[in-house]
Amino acid sequence: MSNTEALVEDYIAMWNETDPDERRSLVARTVTEDATHLDPLMSGNGIDGISAMIAGAQQQFPGHSFRLISGPDAHHDRVRFSWSLAADGEGPVAVGVDFATVADDGRMRSVTGFLEPAA
Amino acid sequence: MSNTEALVEDYIAMWNETDPDERRSLVARTVTEDATHLDPLMSGNGIDGISAMIAGAQQQFPGHSFRLISGPDAHHDRVRFSWSLAADGEGPVAVGVDFATVADDGRMRSVTGFLEPAA
Repeated sequence: MSNTEALVEDYIAMWNETDPDERRSLVARTVTEDATHLDPLMSGNGIDGISAMIAGAQQQFPGHSFRLISGPDAHHDRVRFSWSLAADGEGPVAVGVDFATVADDGRMRSVTGFLEPAA
Repeated sequence: MSNTEALVEDYIAMWNETDPDERRSLVARTVTEDATHLDPLMSGNGIDGISAMIAGAQQQFPGHSFRLISGPDAHHDRVRFSWSLAADGEGPVAVGVDFATVADDGRMRSVTGFLEPAA
């Protein structure tokens, strides 16, 4: 698995981790201290801010989980990948693409999310 | 037409403008003085650097032009859109997605391009 693949696997895992301590560990491994996340619905800054943002998303969509559906596609320090959010055995309630920049230490520094139009 | 639509229309037009002075005017209207462009094949910084980068792309693909194929899709100061590059009446030689941040003055500051896999 490439570094980028492992990074994006951790990124998906951090969105799905409901234990607060485990989640914070995953977030700290995946994004930098000065990281920013911005999508149409949510934003969060730094490890604690992003961990709290994810907790909020989990409360909004209990029993749902994120899955990687395409990518990662990377060049230089940039990466993009697509994901879906769905309850077990159900069709997705959301599909989106995230674009990120990767810091020298291999963690994501800036993540921008977009939502695909509902099918 | 929204500001974002006008911005992206200018962006596509600057890639297609072969007159150096006209192209530089379009680039200066579309990106900031400190703008950066980075895609898998090319990079350019600032108005003159980006204008020169486009001139290089035009020499590589004479008789081809860029066209917007989806978007723009924007939120906050972020925008994404898809484009194709094709010769008149031919199928595309490349399809990609660009993802940009927009400065307070309405111009693009940071553009990252990705290429879609060949169909």
